[in-house]
Amino acid sequence: MEQLEDFFTLRTVTWAGRSVRMIDQTVLPRRLAYRSYTKPAEVAEAIKTMVVRGAPAIGVAAAMGVALSALESRATGKEGIMADIEKAAALLRSTRPTAVNLFWGVDRVVRTARRAPTTREAREAVVSEVKAMEEEDVAANRRLGKIGAELIDDGDTVMTQCNAGALATVGYGTALGVIRAAREAGKFVKVLVPETRPALQGARLTAFELLRDGFDCRLISDTAVGYALSRGVVDKVVVGADRITRDGWVFNKIGTYQIAVLARRHRVPFYPAAPRSTFDLERTHGQVTIEERNASEVVSIRGRRIAPRGIPVGNPAFDATPPELVTAIVSDAGLIRSPVAKNVRRVIS
Amino acid sequence: MEQLEDFFTLRTVTWAGRSVRMIDQTVLPRRLAYRSYTKPAEVAEAIKTMVVRGAPAIGVAAAMGVALSALESRATGKEGIMADIEKAAALLRSTRPTAVNLFWGVDRVVRTARRAPTTREAREAVVSEVKAMEEEDVAANRRLGKIGAELIDDGDTVMTQCNAGALATVGYGTALGVIRAAREAGKFVKVLVPETRPALQGARLTAFELLRDGFDCRLISDTAVGYALSRGVVDKVVVGADRITRDGWVFNKIGTYQIAVLARRHRVPFYPAAPRSTFDLERTHGQVTIEERNASEVVSIRGRRIAPRGIPVGNPAFDATPPELVTAIVSDAGLIRSPVAKNVRRVIS
Repeated sequence: MEQLEDFFTLRTVTWAGRSVRMIDQTVLPRRLAYRSYTKPAEVAEAIKTMVVRGAPAIGVAAAMGVALSALESRATGKEGIMADIEKAAALLRSTRPTAVNLFWGVDRVVRTARRAPTTREAREAVVSEVKAMEEEDVAANRRLGKIGAELIDDGDTVMTQCNAGALATVGYGTALGVIRAAREAGKFVKVLVPETRPALQGARLTAFELLRDGFDCRLISDTAVGYALSRGVVDKVVVGADRITRDGWVFNKIGTYQIAVLARRHRVPFYPAAPRSTFDLERTHGQVTIEERNASEVVSIRGRRIAPRGIPVGNPAFDATPPELVTAIVSDAGLIRSPVAKNVRRVIS
Repeated sequence: MEQLEDFFTLRTVTWAGRSVRMIDQTVLPRRLAYRSYTKPAEVAEAIKTMVVRGAPAIGVAAAMGVALSALESRATGKEGIMADIEKAAALLRSTRPTAVNLFWGVDRVVRTARRAPTTREAREAVVSEVKAMEEEDVAANRRLGKIGAELIDDGDTVMTQCNAGALATVGYGTALGVIRAAREAGKFVKVLVPETRPALQGARLTAFELLRDGFDCRLISDTAVGYALSRGVVDKVVVGADRITRDGWVFNKIGTYQIAVLARRHRVPFYPAAPRSTFDLERTHGQVTIEERNASEVVSIRGRRIAPRGIPVGNPAFDATPPELVTAIVSDAGLIRSPVAKNVRRVIS
């Protein structure tokens, strides 16, 4: 049964002995292709170029990148291997600034290596650790999915944003995990998918994943979000998160904030869903860097130019939704109810 | 001086003797190409496929399409020519349902033909009429531009949506007419341009037009609209309109409504700009049909597929902004101040 499930379920990032195997998300939905990496620098590049994306997935991928540095290191002493590991860790930390899972994943492997008394034990320990993280990710998503499924009613249409599915995690998904769990609980759920420009994760990834798994879904332009909400066709909004700060602000894919504002106007509940590794209990929202990505993502689509040469571009990759717009946050540690600004620290510890 | 201005100014639709000449907006910004049509059915097809788009531009184009039917008609009696004209009018009315200018333009030419006593006079009258409409359009835009320019402060950053520029009219533009007039009045204005999916009129047309005319502008994804407003970088929103009903609802390009909601949240004034031909004093907002366009606009961009085959799509082309979100409407008949629901009928007569 487990094997059968694995066969049908997308596994976005997996530890494959002495390499990391990932679905190449840049070629979806045209091809479901896998890439294997044996070097930390290759994993860093895969994160930067969004071969792998989604906060939980890049957390585990980055951790595996650090683990590769321990295997690759020719150091014979503990100090030597730690220098190689720290170097890889620094490289991986520099790939993307907003999702906190990246730093969480890297730090966890570095700490594991540090605790091991010998180089051999360090190598063994980091491999065990990343394998554990891989399994924990799916388990956390299944747990939060079950908790979130309670919020979904039979027959609901749920709007999401970007891809917070199996492809944003090791497997199962956060926002789409909630939707999967609702279906597993016998509820019929329809999903409304904004395409999510500029990188089109909604059109390319969420549409692919939902169609593949037989969900009733519909794709819309990002411009149609407000119209859909105003027409009363959306019952709930469920999105992922890249970082949730101690003051309850939700950093997620650009476009999430405007969905939250419109959901509030039309009295539609707005639920971010994220595992514990997405919570940053050390920082408040003013201390988070929002990544500005390359203009080419906006002016070209699949290699074709859609805007005149020379046009200046703004391309923020994330935005921040204030806690007052959040109905509740779904986490594997439990439901964080309103006022989330206060309850985040109580539920997540 | 007039000639020099014509040389530099885009003329989107023009009467060229026995044909209609238009800029082909489907190939912008790659090429500035012109097309000429001599048959009403060709003009209808050009409107459907968005060779010409923008409410005021399709109003004049459709009128010219009807005028072509008078020239093309082989009827020798008044009844015969009117039958041909009515047939062309019906075809042109069926092209797009939302912009009221289309119906206004068609009806005006049909009425002109009806009033003429002979077929020869009918042909002369419709040609004079469409030439007058062409010139009136630019004059109305210049007038409303001057009125709207009063609302813009030196140094303002103005967000727009879609293209409500020279390319949406015969020339000069409505929303961009306000911005042009502000510059002509010595004010420095920056423009923030959402790309406006699915048809990308912001990225393709507004960016082209503003760059060409030396404006300081910046392109963003539609998902970054809320973020930009939340960061306080937008001083005013100025958009066009496809139909403004007697109860003050503004029908415009999909995505306008969500900009209006976000502008209100961040206390940024929201100004639609439109000539008299855009006002529908006969209908209230519940009586307007919102065009649903082909799914291909959403799943393919410049011939490249961006979403999986088989994905269901919603593609509404317009949305409706309620009067309570409108700070004031700029028209060539004067500024329609809040409460616009009440003042529309007073100013427009």
